[in-house]
Amino acid sequence: MTRWRIDLEYDGRGFVGWQVQPGARSIQGVLEDAVERLFGERVRVSGSGRTDAGVHAEQQVASFAVEKERSEKAVRDGLNAFLPPDVAVVAARRVPDDFDPRRAVKVKCYRYTWLDRPARSPLWEGFAWHLRDPLDVEAMDRAIQAVVGTHDFTSFRAVGCQAAHPVRTIEGASVTREGPVVRLRIRGNGFLRHMVRILAGTLTEVGQGRADADRMARALEGMDRSAAGRTAPPEGLALEWVDYGEGEGVGRA
Amino acid sequence: MTRWRIDLEYDGRGFVGWQVQPGARSIQGVLEDAVERLFGERVRVSGSGRTDAGVHAEQQVASFAVEKERSEKAVRDGLNAFLPPDVAVVAARRVPDDFDPRRAVKVKCYRYTWLDRPARSPLWEGFAWHLRDPLDVEAMDRAIQAVVGTHDFTSFRAVGCQAAHPVRTIEGASVTREGPVVRLRIRGNGFLRHMVRILAGTLTEVGQGRADADRMARALEGMDRSAAGRTAPPEGLALEWVDYGEGEGVGRA
Repeated sequence: MTRWRIDLEYDGRGFVGWQVQPGARSIQGVLEDAVERLFGERVRVSGSGRTDAGVHAEQQVASFAVEKERSEKAVRDGLNAFLPPDVAVVAARRVPDDFDPRRAVKVKCYRYTWLDRPARSPLWEGFAWHLRDPLDVEAMDRAIQAVVGTHDFTSFRAVGCQAAHPVRTIEGASVTREGPVVRLRIRGNGFLRHMVRILAGTLTEVGQGRADADRMARALEGMDRSAAGRTAPPEGLALEWVDYGEGEGVGRA
Repeated sequence: MTRWRIDLEYDGRGFVGWQVQPGARSIQGVLEDAVERLFGERVRVSGSGRTDAGVHAEQQVASFAVEKERSEKAVRDGLNAFLPPDVAVVAARRVPDDFDPRRAVKVKCYRYTWLDRPARSPLWEGFAWHLRDPLDVEAMDRAIQAVVGTHDFTSFRAVGCQAAHPVRTIEGASVTREGPVVRLRIRGNGFLRHMVRILAGTLTEVGQGRADADRMARALEGMDRSAAGRTAPPEGLALEWVDYGEGEGVGRA
């Protein structure tokens, strides 16, 4: 039995999300199909975490165990030959039998992207939340600092979130602008369901001047989903990297 | 009669290129259709220059003249309502009757993008030239400096290029890397047909160690298309900005 870690990149537009759902096109599903075609074995492919429909990944990490042997290059190139164009295996490596891509995560970094200009954008369509009015990036960057540290994120979890505990540690967050493209980068030891999208939706109120600088702090203190803002649309969200303590994420956010 | 300047963004994947061709989907063609629907007038839309099939634009500039009056906002938003998702008008403004978007150009900046890693990329598909072997970016950056200045670019023009003169001035060029993404940015007063793609194709030989540092200089001196390398594929190319002396391009490349 060999356990593999695969590092993935995907365009989330054509998927119902990470998780297998009957009759729907999921990232996990197309991966399990590709593994079956390459190895002739039907096995579970587990991920570092779920991503929603329409959410992208520059680096998602997944794992599976199979009986047959293959070289690292053969696993990477073989899976890519069987995967559709919107998912790719960027790297494949053997890992210890007990590697669990979800529990072993040290730090994850998500990115949320807005495009704030009057005209829609052909080049950012599907990869940014388009808002016609300008965002105040400095105010957003100040406001997001309120969530850095260890907090109870009850206000920033989806109503159906199944995580046992709502406490997470955010190591750092920043909001920056390049032309009409505004980006939140946020890294932490874990994220609740819809957490980054609710943070982004609430932060948008600050950026649009509809809420003041302590909006995020008050939402945290509210300890209820209704204390935070709307859930930002999925197309702006991307999983940027996942770090297992091997230094991959160092200096990247 | 009012003459308009429109600043455009487009995803070139679904087009045969800028120029109207009978029975084919061109950027110029969909613009002329949108102008007709908004103003009820069939007029020519002229551009700062042509782009090939599959080539993108972050900022292309075009112009047209119509009898009817509309506000700047109505032109921008009205054209966007009639344009397909892969083209948008980012800005519209009135310009003097004699404005010629091709002849008035002061500086244009093109960008060529490579992705050098073994695995294909779902997120860069259609927007970069994928090469499995690593590129030597420092060697490429040194080599491209040979074309900066005023030169006869006969070696770097397509066989069918119809420009009257082959002399162009390149103001600056650089090759940089961010992760697996390698980018050439090159700005100058004008470019011959396929010039950036032939420069990129020749530069790839340097990046892959198949040619030495004076490859670009020797190609220039050869004064014949056969002295340069292959034409790089169109998907890596994007028109980044066009400057009419109003400072739009300042500090951008």
